[in-house]
This record gives sequence, C-alpha cells and structure tokens, in this order.
Amino acid sequence: MSLNTFGHLFRVTTWGESHGPALGATVDGCPPGVDITPEMLQHWLDKRKPGQNKFTTQRREPDEVEILSGVFEGQSTGTPIQLMIRNTDQRSKDYGNISETFRPGHADITYWQKYGIRDYRGGGRSSARETAARVAAGGVARAAIKSLVPNLDIKGYMTQIGPHGIDRANFDWDQIDQNAFWTPDATAATNWATYLDDIRKTHNSVGAIIEVVARNVPAGLGAPIYGKLDTDLAAAMMSINAVKGVEIGEGMAAAALTGAENADEIFMGNDGSPVYSSNHAGGILGGISTGQDVVVRFAVKPTSSILTPRQSITKSGEPIEVVTKGRHDPCVGIRAVPVGEAMMACVILDHILLHRGQVGENRGKIG
Amino acid sequence: MSLNTFGHLFRVTTWGESHGPALGATVDGCPPGVDITPEMLQHWLDKRKPGQNKFTTQRREPDEVEILSGVFEGQSTGTPIQLMIRNTDQRSKDYGNISETFRPGHADITYWQKYGIRDYRGGGRSSARETAARVAAGGVARAAIKSLVPNLDIKGYMTQIGPHGIDRANFDWDQIDQNAFWTPDATAATNWATYLDDIRKTHNSVGAIIEVVARNVPAGLGAPIYGKLDTDLAAAMMSINAVKGVEIGEGMAAAALTGAENADEIFMGNDGSPVYSSNHAGGILGGISTGQDVVVRFAVKPTSSILTPRQSITKSGEPIEVVTKGRHDPCVGIRAVPVGEAMMACVILDHILLHRGQVGENRGKIG
Amino acid sequence: MSLNTFGHLFRVTTWGESHGPALGATVDGCPPGVDITPEMLQHWLDKRKPGQNKFTTQRREPDEVEILSGVFEGQSTGTPIQLMIRNTDQRSKDYGNISETFRPGHADITYWQKYGIRDYRGGGRSSARETAARVAAGGVARAAIKSLVPNLDIKGYMTQIGPHGIDRANFDWDQIDQNAFWTPDATAATNWATYLDDIRKTHNSVGAIIEVVARNVPAGLGAPIYGKLDTDLAAAMMSINAVKGVEIGEGMAAAALTGAENADEIFMGNDGSPVYSSNHAGGILGGISTGQDVVVRFAVKPTSSILTPRQSITKSGEPIEVVTKGRHDPCVGIRAVPVGEAMMACVILDHILLHRGQVGENRGKIG
Amino acid sequence: MSLNTFGHLFRVTTWGESHGPALGATVDGCPPGVDITPEMLQHWLDKRKPGQNKFTTQRREPDEVEILSGVFEGQSTGTPIQLMIRNTDQRSKDYGNISETFRPGHADITYWQKYGIRDYRGGGRSSARETAARVAAGGVARAAIKSLVPNLDIKGYMTQIGPHGIDRANFDWDQIDQNAFWTPDATAATNWATYLDDIRKTHNSVGAIIEVVARNVPAGLGAPIYGKLDTDLAAAMMSINAVKGVEIGEGMAAAALTGAENADEIFMGNDGSPVYSSNHAGGILGGISTGQDVVVRFAVKPTSSILTPRQSITKSGEPIEVVTKGRHDPCVGIRAVPVGEAMMACVILDHILLHRGQVGENRGKIG
Repeated sequence: MSLNTFGHLFRVTTWGESHGPALGATVDGCPPGVDITPEMLQHWLDKRKPGQNKFTTQRREPDEVEILSGVFEGQSTGTPIQLMIRNTDQRSKDYGNISETFRPGHADITYWQKYGIRDYRGGGRSSARETAARVAAGGVARAAIKSLVPNLDIKGYMTQIGPHGIDRANFDWDQIDQNAFWTPDATAATNWATYLDDIRKTHNSVGAIIEVVARNVPAGLGAPIYGKLDTDLAAAMMSINAVKGVEIGEGMAAAALTGAENADEIFMGNDGSPVYSSNHAGGILGGISTGQDVVVRFAVKPTSSILTPRQSITKSGEPIEVVTKGRHDPCVGIRAVPVGEAMMACVILDHILLHRGQVGENRGKIG
Repeated sequence: MSLNTFGHLFRVTTWGESHGPALGATVDGCPPGVDITPEMLQHWLDKRKPGQNKFTTQRREPDEVEILSGVFEGQSTGTPIQLMIRNTDQRSKDYGNISETFRPGHADITYWQKYGIRDYRGGGRSSARETAARVAAGGVARAAIKSLVPNLDIKGYMTQIGPHGIDRANFDWDQIDQNAFWTPDATAATNWATYLDDIRKTHNSVGAIIEVVARNVPAGLGAPIYGKLDTDLAAAMMSINAVKGVEIGEGMAAAALTGAENADEIFMGNDGSPVYSSNHAGGILGGISTGQDVVVRFAVKPTSSILTPRQSITKSGEPIEVVTKGRHDPCVGIRAVPVGEAMMACVILDHILLHRGQVGENRGKIG
Repeated sequence: MSLNTFGHLFRVTTWGESHGPALGATVDGCPPGVDITPEMLQHWLDKRKPGQNKFTTQRREPDEVEILSGVFEGQSTGTPIQLMIRNTDQRSKDYGNISETFRPGHADITYWQKYGIRDYRGGGRSSARETAARVAAGGVARAAIKSLVPNLDIKGYMTQIGPHGIDRANFDWDQIDQNAFWTPDATAATNWATYLDDIRKTHNSVGAIIEVVARNVPAGLGAPIYGKLDTDLAAAMMSINAVKGVEIGEGMAAAALTGAENADEIFMGNDGSPVYSSNHAGGILGGISTGQDVVVRFAVKPTSSILTPRQSITKSGEPIEVVTKGRHDPCVGIRAVPVGEAMMACVILDHILLHRGQVGENRGKIG
Repeated sequence: MSLNTFGHLFRVTTWGESHGPALGATVDGCPPGVDITPEMLQHWLDKRKPGQNKFTTQRREPDEVEILSGVFEGQSTGTPIQLMIRNTDQRSKDYGNISETFRPGHADITYWQKYGIRDYRGGGRSSARETAARVAAGGVARAAIKSLVPNLDIKGYMTQIGPHGIDRANFDWDQIDQNAFWTPDATAATNWATYLDDIRKTHNSVGAIIEVVARNVPAGLGAPIYGKLDTDLAAAMMSINAVKGVEIGEGMAAAALTGAENADEIFMGNDGSPVYSSNHAGGILGGISTGQDVVVRFAVKPTSSILTPRQSITKSGEPIEVVTKGRHDPCVGIRAVPVGEAMMACVILDHILLHRGQVGENRGKIG
C-alpha cells in the first residue's frame, strides 16, 4: 500500500485533483474476461454524485466515467483499466480566497508545509472528489467479484449521524435505498432529515458512522500477519477523506466485553458448514474470513468547510477569520456510503485473488 | 503492505510460530550508522515479557533477542537486520488437545479452512508471541528515530479495561511506568487491579483500549492518498492480534461532533510555528502530520482462551465443549501496550524516510 | 516491480492499448516543486515519434501528451501526474485479419493462451506504442533529476544494427543527434542507411543494440541485494518491447576477461574524488554507483511484423501463412533509443530518492 | 522488487553477512501443504558448497540449513519460512587488512561511500556467501513447483569459461553433473580443467557464462508490461553477485538477425499444443511463456579477489597496491550455476502463483 496505490494483486492507483481537467483510477490486475461496461460503473458513481437532494453539495458534477483502456468488446482483457472522470463544474473562483489561507480542519496547511505547493482549488488532491475514482474502481471490483463469487453481496448504510444512531430493531435492508441517508432505519431517516436541516441552516456540519457489510464471503480470505483482511480493510477505510476511526465487528466496544461474552460459539450448520452463535468478530478471525458477514464501520468527521467563522492563519502567519463559502455537504458521511462499499469491494476482490494465488482452493475440510 | 511484511522504506517482515525453534523479524531499510545494541532492544522486549505480575501469563519466556545481521561494531550498516528470539518455554503438551478442535474466537478454524494445515501448538503463527518480533523491530525504529529526530517521543498506555475507563483529569505521564497496567491514572490502576483479579478468578478475560501518542513529530509526514500517516497507523494497529478497532484523534466520537466543534483552530506560536486550539484531528490532517501530538487508540478484544467452557466443533464436525487450559493473560491488552508503541515507532520512522526520499526538507514555510 | 508498475519511490504505471482511445502513464512519487511543462515532455516524445524518416513507420501519430494532474502552475505538486496521449491514427482495418491468427514472434499467441481475450488491433497492450508513455514519464524523471543533480546527463545511441557495429574510434557525442540512427559514428550512419534500405526493400527487418550512458551520476546510488542499480536497470531495459539482452559495462564480454584485466584500478583524482583506470564495471560495483559513467546496453530483436511470409496457425489450430501488412519499422531499435533513455532516467531518479530516503547524504568520505 | 526482497507473491528476503553469526532467507508466500525437509534444501546447498574440488574456494563452510519456521510436520503451513545458515569458518583475520582499503572491482568502495560503515570481513553483505540463502530459498521454490507442475524441470550449466565456449554439438544433459564445471560438453570440461588450473596458478581469475533452462513451463506465465517473465528473470539474474549481462533466448545476438530468421514459426503439435520451428525467443513472447523451454544466460565477471597486485587507494585517499589473500575461487561462475537455478525456480514459482491469482486457469484454447 504505497502512496497513491492500494491493493496487492488488484491494484488501484487514483490520480487527479478537484479542479484539474480530470481525475481517475488506474486499475491493474483485474482478471480477464469480466463483463464491464461504462454503464455498470456509472450506476455506482450516480449513488455518490452530488446534488441529488438538499443534503449533498449543490455542485453539478455529472461524474461521467470513460473507460480508456483494458476493456475490449465489453470484457476486461487483464491489462490496466484506465477510468477517467472529467471535471466539469469547476467554479475555481469560489476558492481563490483560500490560496493564501489555511482552513482549520483541512489539509491546506499540511500540504503546504510538506510540499511548499498545492493546488488550492477545491482542496486539490485532498478533495473528496478523489473518492469518485474509488467508486469507479469499486465498480470494476464488483464486476469481477460477480464473475468469481456470484452471490457475494456488499452493502453500506449509515448507522449514526451526529449523536443520533439508528435503532437496530428497525433494521430493514430494503429501506437503505429508500431515503436520502442510505439508512436501514426508516424512522431514523425521518428524524435525521429534520436534524440535518437544522445543521445546514445554522451553517454547521456534522459527522456520521457508516457500516459496510459483505455477505456470502467465502471462508479463507486474508493472510497473516500484515495482509490480514481486517488490516487491509482498516487501511482502506481510513484512507477515505475525513475518516477518523475504523471498527471490525464489535469494534471499540470489544474492550468492554468479557471473553465469555465475546467468543462466537461454533456449531455445524445443516449444509455442512460451520455456523456461529454470534458475530462479534465481524466475520474475521486471525485476519482470515470465517464465512460469516464481514462487518466494517467507520466514522466520518464533520466537514470543516462551514460558513461559521473559525480562527486560522495565513501563509505569512497573520491571524485571519475563515469562513468557507462554496457549496459543501452538511454531512459528507452520506456520500461516503458508496465510497465505503467500493473500498470493501476492492479489498475483498484483492483477497480472493491473493488466496487463489497462494492457496488455490481452500484446503481444510470440516466434517 | 503484503502478507508478513509492513512498511514502505523501513520494512519489517516477521516470521515464526509460538512453539517452533524461534521467531523474529527481518528489518530492512534501516538507515546506516544508527547505534543499536541487543540491550537497547531488550529494554522494550522486557516491557512485553510475560510473567511480570499476576495479570500476565505465567509462561516464562526470557524473550532474549539476538542480532544476527545488519549491525557491525554497534552500528547499523544499512543492510537487513535479523532479530531472532528463541522459543524456550514450549509446553507443547498443553496444546495437544486442540489439534483437532477449534477454539471459539480463535484463528484455529480459519487457518484450518484456508491452509488445511496449521501449527496448532500455542496458536502457531496466530499466537501473540509474534508481537515480540514487532517489539524488537520497534526498538530498531526507535533507535533510528532518535538519530534523526532526537526529541520525538512515543508512549503508550491503557485508557480502558473492560467497561472501566480512566479519568483524564488524573492523567499523569509519570504514572504510566508505575503500575501493572501502564495507565496514567493511578486511581484507575488501583481499581482495575481489583476488577481484573475478579475476572481472573472467575476464569474469564476482558478487553481493553490502548492509546499511543507520538510527541514532537515533525509536520509534513504522511502522503496522500493511500500512504496517509493515519492509513498506515490504522493498518499497523489493526494487524496486532485481537485488535478490533482503531481511532485517530477524536476517533469514532468524531461522528457526534459538529464542524464548528471539531475544527482545530490555528494560531501562530511564539516560536514561529503554528499552534492549535485543540487536537481533535489527532495530529493528522489530510493524512499528513501537523506537528501536534499524533494520537492513536485501539481496542483489544478479550482473549478467547478462557477456562469457561464454550461450545465449538471438531475437525470432523462433531460438537465439543472447549475449555482452554494453559497459562493465559486475563487481559492481553496489558502486553499490547509496548506492541502499539513499537508499531507507532515503525510507522513514524517509515514516514520520516519516505518524506526525506520524496521531498527532502519540508518546503513550505509559514510566516 | 509489479505488473504494469515499475519503480520503488518514483513509480510509473503505464496503461493503454495501441488502438484504444488513449494511453498514458500514471507517475507517482515525483518530488514537489519541479518545473514541468507539456513542451518539456513533448521534446522527448518527438524523438520517438514515428514517420520522421524512411526508416521508421509511416504511421502518423502526433503523440501529443496532456498533463491531467499533479502539475499546478507549471510545477509538480508531489501528487500523481497523469500523462495521457490520445491515439489518433488508428487504421484498425489493417489489423482485422490478425484477430484469428497468431503472428510468429509476436505476443498474439501468448496473450491469447493466458487471457483468452486480447485487443488484437495493432498488438493492443503488447504494441510498442506503450513505450510512448514511458518516454513521457522519462521526461518527468529528467526534469526532477535536473532539479536534484543538475549536471547529470543521460544519452542513448545505437552501437549496432544487424551485424554492423560502430567503430568506437569514431565515437563523437555531437554526431548522435545528426543522423537517423542516433549513432555517434558518422561513417556507420552512412553505411547503415544503405544497409537498412536493402532490408526494407526485401520486406525484412533487423535487430540492433542500443547503449545508454548516464554521466555525472553521484556515487552511492543503488542498494543491495535486490534493489541494486544494475538489477533495476536490467529489469527496466528488459521490459522494453523486443529486448532480449541487457548488459552493464563489459556485459557478456566480461566472461572472457581475467580478473587482472577486469579490475578497474582506483586512484585519487585532482578534485579529491576517486578516479578509475577503466570502467569495465559500467559505473556500478556491488549494485551501487561508483561515480563513473553508468553504462547499459540492450539488444532489440528484429520485428516480426514483416512482409516475408512465415508459417503459423490460427486460433482454431489450422496452419496459415502469415504476411504482416501495415506500416512497420524495418528496425525498431531506432525508436528504442529515446525509450532506453527514459527508462534510465526513471531508474536513476528512483534511486536518488531511495538513497535520500534511507541514507540522506552520502556518509563515507575518502581522503 | 525492493532492496533485500524479490518476488511478487512468492517473496524472498535474504539477510546476513559473510562473517556474522548467520545468514538466511525469509521466504513468504509459499503455498501450504508442500513437502519440505531440511535434506531437500541441503541437496541444493551442497551443489554450491565450496571446497568440493580444486576450482572452488578451500574455505570449509558446511552451509547447513535450519528451518526455523513455516514448516510443520514436514509440510509448509503457508506462513513465512525462515531458513538460517550459520557461518562457521570465519577466518576474520584474513580480512583485517582490507578494513581501510578498497579492493579494485569490489563493492568495498561503494558501500563505504554510500553508508559510511561496512562489515568489511569477507565482503560482508556483498559477499557471494549471500547466494547460499538464495539456493536454500530456491529449494523451497522447487518443492512448491513440484507439487504444482510436477514435470517442470530446471537445470543450469556452464557454456563458457574465459574465452572458451562449449561446442553445442557435444551437448549432453547427462554430462552436467559429471564434471567440476557443470558443463554439458565433456570435451570442454577436460580442456577447461587445464585452462583454469593455469589461471589459478598464475594468481588470476576468469569469468564465465551460465545458461539456465526451465523445461515444461506451462504457457501463459508472465504479465505485461513490467511483470514480464523475462523482466523478472533479468532482474533476478542481474542481482547475483558479479553478473554483468543477462540474455533471454537469442540474447544480444538477436541484434544481428533479420526478422525472417528470428521469427519462430508455429505449427500444431500432435498433442494439440502449438510447437515451434525454433526457439530464438527463449520461450517468452511479450513477456509471457510460450510453453517452449525458457532459456536464460548470464555472464559472471572474474572475481577481483586475486593475488595479482592492483592499484587502489585507502580510506584516507592514499595510493596502495592491493593483493587479495584469502581463499578465493579462480572462477566464481562454477558456483553460480546452482544460484542461477535457484533464481529461475523462485521466479517461475512466483509467476505460477501470480497467474493463478489473476487468471486462474489459462483461458484461451487453440484448436
């Protein structure tokens, strides 16, 4: 996992800035013969696209993906797939005033300190627009997974916004695509709408927690010790803009449990595969998938691009009060849902290929 | 970050099983001319060594590290440093009964399913003994950091055990080395002793949260987008045995904050460097260090090796009640403290070298 | 060095097929603050561009490079630089007849056997057009080298075509840019023109040897054991289409020398740096640069795309006589010269950054 | 391929110096369930062991390999295999006089310039003793290959010593193990013995060319563009001490051929697989194996450790005449034969795993 690339065998390198001519992903290592069309990728990009409701930025970016290489007559060839998304709605003037100023909570100051140069327009490389490239790459990963493990399913949803969590009793998979928050709790969706409207009107923003679940993951994916499935998932999720915490299964709450509570007991299922009494482990033991749902959660901090004035300094070290105009999301967590799904897809595919490479088929039978 | 190796330029590959002849770390990329002695590394290994008080396993492993290469006349040569720790207290008979059984919550079942073969003695490769190799490698990283950024300081401590957290008002750096829990809160240490004694006596175990802080980290370390400092820290900590969650700065709690609350405001300090009103970001913005304390937390689940019986299955798929005998820690989090420190040291050094490689000196001046 | 990427810190990933919409290079790890313009890169691409004289293919590809990211206001930002070259002169119909046939000496058959799908138009991914992306990336590397080691100079030239080598007594650096063969021997250039014209008229092709020299390379670049400067150069050159051999310094001829002949004796130079009586080593000892000229040679096989009929088979296993029409170079070695230079530039820059990362400044002084 | 590690999925990291306590290889990514015993590895180490006849150094190093991890009850577990070889015959005093002096043609000066410190005893890290670790790792690779592609066979032999090449008309596979030079030409073996004896008696040394052939390699191994099979082989061979040139198939001589001569014509074989009229390509087209023999050659320069005096300088820059005493091989090429075989085995296995990872089974059928 180095600089702008992630993955071992299925390798994704993203490139591009918010306000340059284009951004994209160079996807290397995709198996050959996978059905891939621009429309398939566009489906996932449209989930992330801004401007779909009042809770996401009103910038109008069509985010149309072009496949420049690696796909021939509708199938992957096994060579690098270049996915390009042109930047079209670039109101650079919105950002002119931040060229000499560091927005609190932003990467402005660290990019400057490190590199001595930065494309300040819209955050440049540190803009969340970069995640569009991940979503496109995730679309390729999903297509490849479909050809290898057809019933494997990846789904993300929001479980908390600001201090307001969902009620797990209301969990309904079918609700997720029915509301502006991608949340499985319809009641929460209603309440959150009111809450977030207030946040937006008071020129503020708020954080969120997203959970991503992969179902029907084969047992045996992941590799000790530094290529663990959870290690790679943690890195993948933490690399998303604004993410400050990552949890697998029980997550931070595992600290409060006893060993007796936490141990997922094992039984033989009717189909001859092990089943578990619970899934505190989040589908991963010793870095290797158990066959249970792989469950990852991550927290997204509130965006610092707010209209509420905050104290900061300029490049020349002068104090300044910063108000970030422009068109920003009151909760960037909403659009992080498809991004988390994409990262899950890329990591899972990578480990399917890694496992096949080193081991071939699973070797240990039970029963 | 691939399989048994982590790091970009400072690369650590660990090897070895719990009950094989030895385990160790192959450390590549250490700068030349760094003063390194076995005693320096042993200092950190002794922190992790079991059997030091009643709260850690009573196995007696001296964990003596031998330097087999890469150090000449007390200095690193720039070539690979092989650190070997012999396994001495191998009561393999304690584990014989688990060769055909999968302990709930353990990697027994996933290793079997993936590989069809496993060194079941003491968990084999999935044993926490592997972390001794990390601690040794971390000692090398600390030595190199000392030569490059002398005042950089790394310290880990426990902030929660089971449901009992510390009181931050009692935080005292000097307390950390004064109690069995490496905790900065003396009152907590006293209460935890009683609590953990109960856990132990009831044949149970419990989880914990460890925080690791790096102070005086230069601004500018880390690299967008997949080589972010927090990305690499998340992977590093999540790769430690039993870790289920990783947080940077505010962590999962960032979800509940508003943008106004979360933004660390920036001012000019008296020494001409930026200072911040707070450190919700945990010392990292956009994946790059700010110069503030780098703050990482991780949760360790309770060990599943307990005397309380749990339901499981055998290799042949028969139900079985598992009671894990042997000498296990009631809270593995205690011994995870020096491991977390070691991982922090390795990641920070790696990024010091990476930054020097790509950028040289920091380029952007303020003021 | 993995699949479509090469380099450790300065990493180049190329993508694209001969007859897709575009091809390019994703360049990661470039130092920030390097002056880079499209014109600077175009300069090198124009050296490689076909159709410049009768000895190179008459395809008309302007090979115009666009910088899509990583350069802001004329300077590198330290983030990925995307270099895109659109494919414009795509006479796909020239290639239609090879979709079912394997050209002898071509990658047609192996791509098919491996992947079961290939973009057969113009060789697809295996086309030498891919080297345009390398040349563009090499332009970035040259710019970065210029900012770090200003007097470092990289120059490639042809030393043999078919069986006809140059006379080293005629070696004249200034001649290199004066003839169609990039050769330092003016007499050879004249003779070769006649020779190659014959080859071309007889519908044949011929191989060549290219030498690339880097002058004023600082001592100390390269790293034992598998990151040796010569190891990376060997890989870089062997990865170029049609290359079948790579030599450092004396190369294969070193086998015939005695130790007494081969040892480059060492003296102190007037400027306090070591000087050598000879350079059999090609500027590299133990994988690390000595400060002498780094000398690499590689052999390019004759292209198999010839009008002379050769026996082959079709996908269905039927025998067929293959005559490759289209517009092909009688000696692809000519256009390999700027490609070899580009690879040298990328490898040297990578090792400058690697050395700075691990070691900082050279540490051992002499005298 | 980074610093002291090579390979993508089957990764080998070597460590250790000539006169430290031990050296070895950390082998990661080996498939599980492969039969591996110390005796199997020792077999190959014994081929490389010095002191077997008067043409190799008279140092007595038993080179006994210990397996410290990754093998359980005689089978690989899929976790890292640590192979350690203790250094026993360390006459360090032989080397004391070179601590302040740079031997011409040796890495002494470059290690010093780069690192400012070096283990000068016996060449330290740059000693050819490091290749013992490769041979051990190669033994693991051979074992894994045997389990995956049982009839795949790897064999190295010497084709030239000094100016004296073999006569290909005398080629006899069975001769290779019958003479001190691992050469398939019995007549050459006799002549070379006289020749090398002269070289030895005149206190000189001489170079050699080694050819390594892999037979029954499946078609489809290797990956464009920078993970080509020949790219990785070139790097692997060039990384061996004293190697100055690497050739695939026709090698440097390909330059002198015409396209009509060089094209290996393709026919259908009786077993339904393609057969070729010749193998100029060395079994690789477009970086991917054709199913023909994979043929690699490399040139080893004469060792510079000779008793003939050569001019050099000391650390303080004073001129000095260097005579290298100690026990050195008159032709290090002899012992390079098993090393070349080992590197071939590691690269081939790596590509078998890589291919299985990305593609699974070969997808394109012929006929």
